[in-house]
Amino acid sequence: MSTTQLFAERGDKAQIEEGAAFAPKFDADGLIPAMAMDATTKEPLMLAYMNEESLRRTLELGEAVYWSRSRKEYWHKGATSGHVQKIVEIRTDCDQDALVLYVEQVGAGACHTGRGSCFYRSVDASDLASGAKLTFNSKDRAFDPESVYGKH
Amino acid sequence: MSTTQLFAERGDKAQIEEGAAFAPKFDADGLIPAMAMDATTKEPLMLAYMNEESLRRTLELGEAVYWSRSRKEYWHKGATSGHVQKIVEIRTDCDQDALVLYVEQVGAGACHTGRGSCFYRSVDASDLASGAKLTFNSKDRAFDPESVYGKH
Repeated sequence: MSTTQLFAERGDKAQIEEGAAFAPKFDADGLIPAMAMDATTKEPLMLAYMNEESLRRTLELGEAVYWSRSRKEYWHKGATSGHVQKIVEIRTDCDQDALVLYVEQVGAGACHTGRGSCFYRSVDASDLASGAKLTFNSKDRAFDPESVYGKH
Repeated sequence: MSTTQLFAERGDKAQIEEGAAFAPKFDADGLIPAMAMDATTKEPLMLAYMNEESLRRTLELGEAVYWSRSRKEYWHKGATSGHVQKIVEIRTDCDQDALVLYVEQVGAGACHTGRGSCFYRSVDASDLASGAKLTFNSKDRAFDPESVYGKH
């Protein structure tokens, strides 16, 4: 299947905002941000990016496939760790330039640091004169990253 | 206060991932994505972008201030509509290149189309051979955009 058939051409503002055609907008680098959220707990897990082909693979496979900007390659989440993200629902926003993925996170967690979510720290803005600080929401790891990602 | 004092310099991987210094990474355009979520319902509201100065203003004001990429100006959300987003909590991710804002959304909704959330449509992947389609989650508007945003 060609991606031309899978995604619609970008129409006018009314078509994009009120239409039923999925016409995702990829930025100058060909990417669209995708926020993965736990479908059950609604906790944010990670924010990553997709290009047109990885979004196509995600829809066809039913599992999240990102584009790794650092490695410049397709990134089927969980291919290494087993922690795949099964797609429960994908939402897009009014101008169709962002995605929310509700996923079933298989395995212990989404974050390569061993935590369930990448968003494990909050900004402490109580003393801005001394600079913004971070506090940990979940210091404990959900899994040992060495045992999952380490070279054997 | 200078932003130099407010944010830390980017350190090494361990400092960025496991440290308490807030060293947000702004991309080549000087932006960081920020996903605003309802602090009570945990529903995603909108995804927008901040530059260093708008993030500083957000922290100092306690309300979301984005950078509008289309208008190329600071965007104090709610300045026009009254629908400000009071910051309840800001989280950042492992590599500190994305933000989640848990907000108290004042007024009827976050989306300029009149809906509570910008993410009011889901991707229907049930018949990909015919193309991906969108289905509406909340067709009904939370408010009338003309009355809120219209010229008077």
